[in-house]
Amino acid sequence: MSDFTAKEVVEAAERIKNVVHKTPIFTSETIDRFAGCHVFFKGEHLQKTGSFKARGACNAVQLLKEAGKTNGVITHSSGNHGQGLSYAARAAGLPCTVVVPRTAPPSKLEGMKAYGAEIILCEPTMKSREETCEKVATERGLTIVPPFDDQVIMAGQGTAAVELLDELPNLDAVFLAVGGGGLAAGMATYIKQTKPNVQVYLVEPNGKGLHIYLENGQIRGDLDSLNTIADGIRVLRVGANPYPILQKYCKDTILTVGEEEIKEAVALIWTRLKQRVEPTAGVPLAGLLKMAKEVGFALKGKNVAIILCGGNCDLTFLPL
Amino acid sequence: MSDFTAKEVVEAAERIKNVVHKTPIFTSETIDRFAGCHVFFKGEHLQKTGSFKARGACNAVQLLKEAGKTNGVITHSSGNHGQGLSYAARAAGLPCTVVVPRTAPPSKLEGMKAYGAEIILCEPTMKSREETCEKVATERGLTIVPPFDDQVIMAGQGTAAVELLDELPNLDAVFLAVGGGGLAAGMATYIKQTKPNVQVYLVEPNGKGLHIYLENGQIRGDLDSLNTIADGIRVLRVGANPYPILQKYCKDTILTVGEEEIKEAVALIWTRLKQRVEPTAGVPLAGLLKMAKEVGFALKGKNVAIILCGGNCDLTFLPL
Repeated sequence: MSDFTAKEVVEAAERIKNVVHKTPIFTSETIDRFAGCHVFFKGEHLQKTGSFKARGACNAVQLLKEAGKTNGVITHSSGNHGQGLSYAARAAGLPCTVVVPRTAPPSKLEGMKAYGAEIILCEPTMKSREETCEKVATERGLTIVPPFDDQVIMAGQGTAAVELLDELPNLDAVFLAVGGGGLAAGMATYIKQTKPNVQVYLVEPNGKGLHIYLENGQIRGDLDSLNTIADGIRVLRVGANPYPILQKYCKDTILTVGEEEIKEAVALIWTRLKQRVEPTAGVPLAGLLKMAKEVGFALKGKNVAIILCGGNCDLTFLPL
Repeated sequence: MSDFTAKEVVEAAERIKNVVHKTPIFTSETIDRFAGCHVFFKGEHLQKTGSFKARGACNAVQLLKEAGKTNGVITHSSGNHGQGLSYAARAAGLPCTVVVPRTAPPSKLEGMKAYGAEIILCEPTMKSREETCEKVATERGLTIVPPFDDQVIMAGQGTAAVELLDELPNLDAVFLAVGGGGLAAGMATYIKQTKPNVQVYLVEPNGKGLHIYLENGQIRGDLDSLNTIADGIRVLRVGANPYPILQKYCKDTILTVGEEEIKEAVALIWTRLKQRVEPTAGVPLAGLLKMAKEVGFALKGKNVAIILCGGNCDLTFLPL
């Protein structure tokens, strides 16, 4: 993995700059008081397609298009990556197919269709998703774009860190939710290689056990899903590409939060920042607020950034 | 009323610039497509205290403080004006008392208390609110700051228009929700006196009948409240100070919307802009979308601004 560096992230930022948003920063005096530090929320829920996933997808699709080696792209997704890829393909003028489990919420399907993607339904298992995706890709000669376990995707997601350090040069720490590890690996690489003193905290839901697996030196084997309200990070194991990067940079900065802590953080973001983020976006704030309660809180009075990863949730969702 | 001009609004903008936010603009390609025009949402829900009411309150309190003629301020409010005045008083270092009906939601009370205001509960009638407010003001020598029927308040609320025209010089129309008329009169005065070609549309809930009363030349007499989800504009009649201004500038640009239309607009703002606004903030978009359905829609392809007036609603609220 030593060949993935901040250079790839910088190049991705240049490559996608005309198709993604530079997202805004939000602050709240009340949340600062609760957290005991200055908190800067980067609004990736206002990114194209409503999540940071558009960054990685755009980087992958732009690269494929430049190489002239694809007739179209395909992925399997029940959520934000499918929307991100649909948008990225449309922006590049390429066809896009998304394999979607039958149980995915209609709002996500609508998002993909609105960007012009073709939807193929499959059974709601990882096996069915992967098999259907590979079968259709082979039949139609489409290029598979994975959601996180790919250096090109990691580089794209990492571009959020380029904007962040550019806008907030005096940052002390960054908190982000970790699922498959694409965003975490991309951002950690850029941050630790350009500003080594900035700490990168990864926050996970109870049951993921990432700190154990990074300590062990083993990638978690099971493909099951976590049972958490944070539906963007239900994948249990991080990808093989992100794994060594997270082990190198974040082994000692993993935080674990419970469901009630996530809901409380989402409620704070909704009522104080007035930003209607999805459940997963509450995870890093939950981690920061938990850490802030500890005696000798190391970030007291410091400048801390939080990634609001997405804003795609059904209208009826309430963090109660 | 001829003595209220754009000059008062410009002076207010200068007076309050260090205590209020210059609020950001949000856009959505999807909403543009639905509306058939370019829509720019001004985020007053991100204003200090979560609504534009902080503008007028700050202008009033700063003026009182400069004049050195007050020991403290008082008002009656069940919502955003109470929070706005509490914040304005704290910013000026003056004590603040708010008379609040017993039925007001706890979240609003918490907001006022957090800004250091003293709360006095009263019966939930306009009579009890006004009598209690006047009694306490007299006993304690406090200055009453009204919510909308006052030129100083109108000037403060109008400062949103100064920012708007400054940031969007090619604007063709502005849509805003109308309740007591303070924001409408302040913004309409500034806009029509500096850029007469920009149209100012006022959107009201069913049952208010503002177009009839502006046509009649009569201020509506009853003090009752409208039964609408848009709780920020339940007051039935516009104030005596705003009335002649609205009659002069907006008589032919009043739109009326139903409850379902308001809810649909709020849902669009939540899911597309990811901004968690309060119900009243859906009113102007509801008006625009209704108008956009008419044959020969006059604003097709034009640049239209919408004021997102506030973001203070309980966590359990859903626009369903």
